[in-house]
Parts: sequence; structure tokens; C-alpha cells
Amino acid sequence: MAMDRRKFIRTTALSTGLAVAGGLASASCGLQGKKDASAAAGSSKAKDVKLNISFQENTAPGESLSEKFDFMEKLGVTGFEPWGGGLYDRVTSIQDALKGRNIKISAVCAGFEGWLLADDDAIKQKCIDSSKRIIEAAGALGAAGMILVPAFNSQKSWPHTLETRERLVNELRELAQFAEQHKTSLILEPLNRREAFYLRLVSDAAAICKDVDSKGIACMGDFWHMTWEETSDYGAFLSGGKYLNHVHIASRKRRRMPGEDGEADNYIDGFNALKAMDYQGFISFECGTEEDRNVVVPAAVDLIKKQWEMDC
Amino acid sequence: MAMDRRKFIRTTALSTGLAVAGGLASASCGLQGKKDASAAAGSSKAKDVKLNISFQENTAPGESLSEKFDFMEKLGVTGFEPWGGGLYDRVTSIQDALKGRNIKISAVCAGFEGWLLADDDAIKQKCIDSSKRIIEAAGALGAAGMILVPAFNSQKSWPHTLETRERLVNELRELAQFAEQHKTSLILEPLNRREAFYLRLVSDAAAICKDVDSKGIACMGDFWHMTWEETSDYGAFLSGGKYLNHVHIASRKRRRMPGEDGEADNYIDGFNALKAMDYQGFISFECGTEEDRNVVVPAAVDLIKKQWEMDC
Repeated sequence: MAMDRRKFIRTTALSTGLAVAGGLASASCGLQGKKDASAAAGSSKAKDVKLNISFQENTAPGESLSEKFDFMEKLGVTGFEPWGGGLYDRVTSIQDALKGRNIKISAVCAGFEGWLLADDDAIKQKCIDSSKRIIEAAGALGAAGMILVPAFNSQKSWPHTLETRERLVNELRELAQFAEQHKTSLILEPLNRREAFYLRLVSDAAAICKDVDSKGIACMGDFWHMTWEETSDYGAFLSGGKYLNHVHIASRKRRRMPGEDGEADNYIDGFNALKAMDYQGFISFECGTEEDRNVVVPAAVDLIKKQWEMDC
Repeated sequence: MAMDRRKFIRTTALSTGLAVAGGLASASCGLQGKKDASAAAGSSKAKDVKLNISFQENTAPGESLSEKFDFMEKLGVTGFEPWGGGLYDRVTSIQDALKGRNIKISAVCAGFEGWLLADDDAIKQKCIDSSKRIIEAAGALGAAGMILVPAFNSQKSWPHTLETRERLVNELRELAQFAEQHKTSLILEPLNRREAFYLRLVSDAAAICKDVDSKGIACMGDFWHMTWEETSDYGAFLSGGKYLNHVHIASRKRRRMPGEDGEADNYIDGFNALKAMDYQGFISFECGTEEDRNVVVPAAVDLIKKQWEMDC
């Protein structure tokens, strides 16, 4: 799992990288050495599913929201994922900045205080209270939901037992019902084990959603975390199923812009699942870069668009 | 999750149940309210995958192995899954009983002492030592592997943390390497939370296999447990992927013979995944019945054969 800090591949090389990724796809998607389950997704029906790309606050270059939105519109990026912290006080300014644009709020990225699995009631309550304020803002902005990680590894929590799982489901149900009232949702995000061992698999997040059993609960997958934890992007998204309403994307070795890690940045198997599921949500950038955003961001969008059209 | 103890559906009713299940399939397989990802698996290629059915020791009626094998052969059942306890001393007699028959040992069901996640070293070591003896027998009998549950809920174990996961992976690697030497494998079985909270999802078992990284490690799915824990049979098996080398089947409400729970006994979505993956392993009965085995067992085999041919 050591990060392979490859030499950065410039835009010209990105096309080559894509070509290689495309070439690899027929061998690497689906299941190694077995028939290609994913190929099945490449029906003409599945091809019609629209790709909706979203950026976080820091993805596009530019100082103001307006500059960032101009950049996004030029690339055909139609989603924006703001940070949840302080969002309640930014609702009007964001709504103003969105006026007359073909950009919607995709989801709201965390920003709450405390954590839900805390064995300290005050910390848990802080999480619930601050989450509700962000959920209200998320609803007002028409977001699919607010992203929540139940606990990071560093956050002292209840032991990982059946009782804790049942406790979590009850807490989530309260928040999910609140989210539903505000026409939005609470989106569970699995992370890789180094960040949050408690929830690592999309299928586990989906299983929690099944138990919560509320219209206000959802889950997501992040290609970056999935790289380390999942055995199949296709299987993971399919298990997410009807609960999956958001996706994060990044390069698959260093969490940079998609394409910066060359051949590793193959999302075709996962995309095939999303198309087969008729996924209507956004694929949102959550990644950094040390390169010029004016170069690597458009290249990343191009790579994603091309891979979305590919079947393996 | 309460068991619905329906009135038993007799063989004649089973056909009706199957017809209903077939009718339901187009609505229930794949993802509710979304495009049918599983339909994709119904390619002519996938249809060619052979169905291999297996029975455990108590599935078929009959007093002796010979009587049971006669019954199985009449139904076209080509796999036998013996109990691991005491298996080492039964190798020759089982080999003799199999002579001249079209029946192979599918897998070996547990039978070891102690448990691998024990925080007591003596208990853990007992598990390793007794497992090795069964693995030797499994290898001699040509079984795909020995099925292992890392710990049941009642078995005092290490807390469920990242450190425990790493400890487990190391223990499994030792056993998997031993299994590989004996041309067989160690098969991780996820159970439902009421039996074994530690490992509930096929994707999690597969992720452990990925970490163990040995030819001697594998995982399986049991439709009974999957009913309660998975959100998608298709996604679960696909995540199992190349690690999946065994499957258990039972009715989906009461763990009886497939078909005894009527419409609930729909395996088509999972079967579609297995066919798409070119699954070469067995689907083995692990279930009881209160009915006449001479009636319900053949009906169950018939139901499975029919659903294997269906695409939804």
C-alpha cells in the first residue's frame, strides 16, 4: 500500500496514459481470469446514462466562487460540493452565485463537529446538533445530502460490536429523518482503514442504510478509498445500489487529479456499474494537486468523460 | 428479521412458488427502481456456465454414504461436503464410497476446535492445529477447501480493531500457505450478525483474502446469511470475485430446503452473478427440513436448476 510517487505525467502524457488504461481495461475490469461480468453493463441502455461531474471548493482555479463557476461551466462541470462548516451562513451567497448557471449543489462535504460514534455523549450530541444545521443548509441548497464519516481512527469511540452498530443505526435514523424533512439525506462515506477502520466498504455502508430504513439515509463510494479496500469497484457500487447517491474521485495512487497516476487511474469498471445502475448522482472531485490546475483539471475531466464512454 | 414460519409449501405448490419467483424476478433482481444491472449477466456466454450442486452429510435421505450417494446421483448432484471433525480418519472410507461415482468432494465444513480470533493463545493454537489436520484431509480428498469462521459471537476474542484484523491476516496466511501445500484452501465464511458479527459480508471476506494474498485463501457466500446482511446478491458475489470458491444455499426465511419458503427463495440475482463470473465451484445445501427429504430435496434441486437457467 506504499504510495508510488511516480513522476508527474503532463497533459500530453495523460492522453497516452488514457490510451494505456483503455487498453488495459479489457484485461483488468470485471474479474481477473474470469469472464467479464462488467462487459455486460455495456448495453446500449447503460450507455445513455448521463455523466454528472462535480467539483469541491478547491478543485477549480480561481479566487471567487464566480471565477470557479466560470471555469467549471467551460468544462461542462455541473455540480459543486461545498464544505459543510459555516455553510448555513453561506446559503444566500451560494444561491446568488449559482443564479443563471447550469450548476447545482451536488452534496455537502462534512463540516460538522464531534463524531457520531463517540462514547462521550456531549461529543455525540455536538455532532448531531452541528450536523442538523448543515443538513438544513444542504436542503435549502438542493444538495443530495451531507456526507458523514461515523468516526475517524483518532476519535475515541464505542468498541466495534453489534451493540455499537445498533446504537449507530438509531442515531443515524434520527438524523436521516431530519434530513428527509429537509428534502435531503445523510450520506455515509466509507474511508480506507488508515483513516477510519470502522467503515471501509461500500457494501457495509449500504447494509447500514438498509438497517436505518429511512428515505433520508444514503451512502457513497470514493474511488480513492475503494482502491485500497474493495476487491471490485463494480461489486461495491452494485452493493451500494439504491442507497448510493454520491461518488468521489481522485487519482488512485496519490489522491491527485484523475490521470496524474497514469495507468492506475482506471475507473471503467466502476463507471460500468454506475451506468448499469442508472446512477443519477454526481461524480465529485476530492483530490489535490501540486501541478497547474489550469492544466491538470481539464485533463482530468477529459479522462473521466472518455472512460465514461468506454466499456471493457 | 423475525422468521415468518409459513405453512410448508408442498411439492405441487413449489412449482407455483417458482413461477411466482420467476415472475417477481424481473422486478426484484438487480436494483430496485433502477436499470437492471444483472440482466446484463444473461449473455449467451454466461448461460453456458455449468451448475454444480453439492449436499452436506445430512441433506440426502439414507443411512449410509452409499445410500446417500445413490440418491444424489439420481438427482445429478455431483458434490459432497463432509463435516471436518474426525475427517482425517474417514478419508479412505470416503474415497472408497466415491469410487466409480460422478461425485466429488466440494468443500469440507469446519469441524476444527477453538477459534482463530481467540485472545487466549492456547485456544487459537488449538484452532490452528486442528484446522491443519482437517486441511490435510481436505487436500487428500480433492476438496476446494476447509470452511472457517474466524469467531462466533459467543467465542471470546480480540476487539474488532485494525490491529486484530492484521493479526487475523497473519494467522490466516500461515493456514493458507499450509492449505496451498496440500492443494486446497482455507475458505472464509461470512455469517449473519446474530451468529458472527465479526465477518458478515462477502466483500469483507474477499478484502481479507486480498490482504492475505495467498493461493490458499478463499471465501464463500451463503444465501441464508446473505439474505440478512447483503444489499445485493449480485454485488456480493462479484466482490467475492476470484476468491469465491464455494457457495451455500438454503431457503431464505427459515433455512430449510430451497423452495420451502416460497417466493422468498429467489436466487436468480446471485446465480446471474455466478454465471457472469464463470463460477466453477459448487452450490452446496446447508439447511434442514421438517418434511420428507424424499419429497423436498428433489423439489429443491429442481427449483435451483430452473432458477439457474433464468435471467431476470
